Amino acid sequence: MKKKNVLVLGGSSDIGIEVIKIFLSLNWNVYAHYLKNKKKLEDVKKKYKSLKVIKFNFSNYKNLKIEKNLKTKFNKRYDTVINLVGYTDNIGFEKTNLKSILKSLTANALTPILLQKILVKKMLSKKWGRILNCSSIGVKYGGGINSFNYSFSKHCLEFIPGIHKQWAKKNVLINNLRIGVTNTKIHKRMKRKNKIKDRIKLIPINRMAEPKEIASYIITLTTEKNSYVTGQTLSVSGGE
Amino acid sequence: MKKKNVLVLGGSSDIGIEVIKIFLSLNWNVYAHYLKNKKKLEDVKKKYKSLKVIKFNFSNYKNLKIEKNLKTKFNKRYDTVINLVGYTDNIGFEKTNLKSILKSLTANALTPILLQKILVKKMLSKKWGRILNCSSIGVKYGGGINSFNYSFSKHCLEFIPGIHKQWAKKNVLINNLRIGVTNTKIHKRMKRKNKIKDRIKLIPINRMAEPKEIASYIITLTTEKNSYVTGQTLSVSGGE
Amino acid sequence: MKKKNVLVLGGSSDIGIEVIKIFLSLNWNVYAHYLKNKKKLEDVKKKYKSLKVIKFNFSNYKNLKIEKNLKTKFNKRYDTVINLVGYTDNIGFEKTNLKSILKSLTANALTPILLQKILVKKMLSKKWGRILNCSSIGVKYGGGINSFNYSFSKHCLEFIPGIHKQWAKKNVLINNLRIGVTNTKIHKRMKRKNKIKDRIKLIPINRMAEPKEIASYIITLTTEKNSYVTGQTLSVSGGE
Amino acid sequence: MKKKNVLVLGGSSDIGIEVIKIFLSLNWNVYAHYLKNKKKLEDVKKKYKSLKVIKFNFSNYKNLKIEKNLKTKFNKRYDTVINLVGYTDNIGFEKTNLKSILKSLTANALTPILLQKILVKKMLSKKWGRILNCSSIGVKYGGGINSFNYSFSKHCLEFIPGIHKQWAKKNVLINNLRIGVTNTKIHKRMKRKNKIKDRIKLIPINRMAEPKEIASYIITLTTEKNSYVTGQTLSVSGGE
Repeated sequence: MKKKNVLVLGGSSDIGIEVIKIFLSLNWNVYAHYLKNKKKLEDVKKKYKSLKVIKFNFSNYKNLKIEKNLKTKFNKRYDTVINLVGYTDNIGFEKTNLKSILKSLTANALTPILLQKILVKKMLSKKWGRILNCSSIGVKYGGGINSFNYSFSKHCLEFIPGIHKQWAKKNVLINNLRIGVTNTKIHKRMKRKNKIKDRIKLIPINRMAEPKEIASYIITLTTEKNSYVTGQTLSVSGGE
Repeated sequence: MKKKNVLVLGGSSDIGIEVIKIFLSLNWNVYAHYLKNKKKLEDVKKKYKSLKVIKFNFSNYKNLKIEKNLKTKFNKRYDTVINLVGYTDNIGFEKTNLKSILKSLTANALTPILLQKILVKKMLSKKWGRILNCSSIGVKYGGGINSFNYSFSKHCLEFIPGIHKQWAKKNVLINNLRIGVTNTKIHKRMKRKNKIKDRIKLIPINRMAEPKEIASYIITLTTEKNSYVTGQTLSVSGGE
Repeated sequence: MKKKNVLVLGGSSDIGIEVIKIFLSLNWNVYAHYLKNKKKLEDVKKKYKSLKVIKFNFSNYKNLKIEKNLKTKFNKRYDTVINLVGYTDNIGFEKTNLKSILKSLTANALTPILLQKILVKKMLSKKWGRILNCSSIGVKYGGGINSFNYSFSKHCLEFIPGIHKQWAKKNVLINNLRIGVTNTKIHKRMKRKNKIKDRIKLIPINRMAEPKEIASYIITLTTEKNSYVTGQTLSVSGGE
Repeated sequence: MKKKNVLVLGGSSDIGIEVIKIFLSLNWNVYAHYLKNKKKLEDVKKKYKSLKVIKFNFSNYKNLKIEKNLKTKFNKRYDTVINLVGYTDNIGFEKTNLKSILKSLTANALTPILLQKILVKKMLSKKWGRILNCSSIGVKYGGGINSFNYSFSKHCLEFIPGIHKQWAKKNVLINNLRIGVTNTKIHKRMKRKNKIKDRIKLIPINRMAEPKEIASYIITLTTEKNSYVTGQTLSVSGGE
């Protein structure tokens, strides 16, 4: 049987790295997109030589030729696409403006959606595809005091186009994962500021998720393990 | 008692005209925004001299100074803001691209949101405000075959920022109205194409809404009649 | 034009009394159901002689002939039915048992549903009907520490049967209203216990609703004012 | 490490049998509840001698001592409880009555909930527990023409008590699974009536789920694989 291809957008994030490791151990061909933190991907590559990395800036809202670039950069037939891009700017509602909102939106929603538009065609022709867009539990609350741009763009990303019902007939499944507070670099930084303790109190399960833990749900929804769930949004958020 | 001010964005639409007429008959100061169809507003003005009109293009995603322009154009203290802007381009998922999606988004979601950001401050200081964003029942279905851009942008608009809970304390209430198929110019055009009959079959109530009918729900949610509903999305869609 | 008939279940509740007064002032024939607090209804009757009252116990889950009794007691053709029955027993999840859960369920959900099944037929034949089931914001949270039975039964009540789409064709509309914390007798009692202050802190709008205020939303959804909303659940809850 | 115990309610259903087989292969102690179709469980027992079976009638709404009986019959400490009880009576809204509705409700919602109330205590004391209530995609539509009682009772079952947030702190997680049309005995019967073809057309994925397929999602949510999802409802329904 031919090896399957997975594309992990935002692959150098803490969750992305865990997702990549599992797919590599499952013997998939892994393509990891990144913008920053290349080092983390290079560390994985030491063990798994086959890992391919792709650098691309998702937040460039002025690049109206972006689709051409996307087609060039992401030119394989991917069986699975996982979107973990998470551009954050810590801008709340009162400080937002057109420029910053366009940047967040383009990175977190528009570029991933346009890329999926391109990639879904090959999935449909091969009658197999899994797409997972990773959103944030913050969407449930309309974002926090410093995360309007982020949560707004993740809310936008959660829109599943009606045409997904046609895709289902050809075994192309698309879902959203609302990820709760996770023990990543970003939150480690919060830790230093002593804020994270207060945030954890709001999580019924009373602890952050581990990146590995989240990765495991991602795998379930984006491999052969998922054959009948599409068009859904699942919250992995410790009871929030 | 001082007269209240209402700003109707997309005021020259069929529903907008009905909303404006009711507010005028209720003796509010009415500010009607429009881009096209000025004639319709002028017709109303014949009867109600006090109607003010404001022309502004909401879809200009390249104007990064838009907030400055918004502040200049919409420089009153409005008690109520109703967003009926509905930029449509008939572009489905398979035909979408960055340019068209940015245009729809900016018109239907970003500019209204940025304007509301500006206007809410005066509402808060006066401890009274009503904001209503009008979305579409199409959002429920992920948009139709030719309305991805439209439905996506209306989905984005439905995001209610978490800070609205702070606004509530100061009697500033914000809600969404998901409007069903309405007997407007747009649908009249569909009628000619004989498509509208099929669409109506999908509406349990078996008829389109009349613009006046929708206007009545809008009034209920944006005047003193609404004193306790905020952060909600109501579908006025004949059972869809 | 012939006067319309409204049936208010739980009519002697604080909200019920306000609803009744408005319908009487609108010149409807009002039928008020009650189990306790007859005195309040009698007070209204002093001013409005035409008010009819009907006593019926909704919580009798052992009465398998209940439909026969319902048909006898509620034998008019009602244009509008509003269900405000709210049987409370202060039983939380850990203390619940089959007996108490059956009692709550029968009062708050099963009897109203069975009665509506009977009454909807006449509405359909006359091609006009409005049904409103009043639920509680507590449903959103899965009930509080002492209100599992209550919130569970209100959750059950919120089920709108699929057949409502057929009803819509004949202008029979059904909706739910999720009511927030209201300044009623029950909460006045809490006040004495100093608990209500803490509860109010959880309401973004920072105060309880007044019964009159809630009544006004009920009127909007159950008279000619509502002609296009059906199958919906609206929260009137101050931003909760 | 000590073997874990799983209780499968409705264990002799087609999906139940698949769930049981997987848990047995994972080396759990399996307790299978049934009312009918004992033969199917006996067939499994031929291979896996360790399987325990428990007969109990869940639909007896007159047995107000049911909790005593439940405590006697289900007297182990179960780590996982999966509720697949599905009492069906083919009664639509227009034919329902108090007796039949009480029977459906008691079987599909009340008895499972009361049993979970009993069993959760031991889970909490051991700081590990997984509860999954299996509902039906029909709930989304308010039930079909002949399934009001069934869908209503499954809707009731979907109520997750607010106290589940306390349970999360002690690693006791509870979720709902909305199961789509599955290739079980019930639907095989429909097949003979040629109805099933029409039903399948409504499923975007264009086929029924297989019992094994559903079982796999159940395992994911009720074993160690699930460590961070609680209070959620997931639809496994082929895009419906």
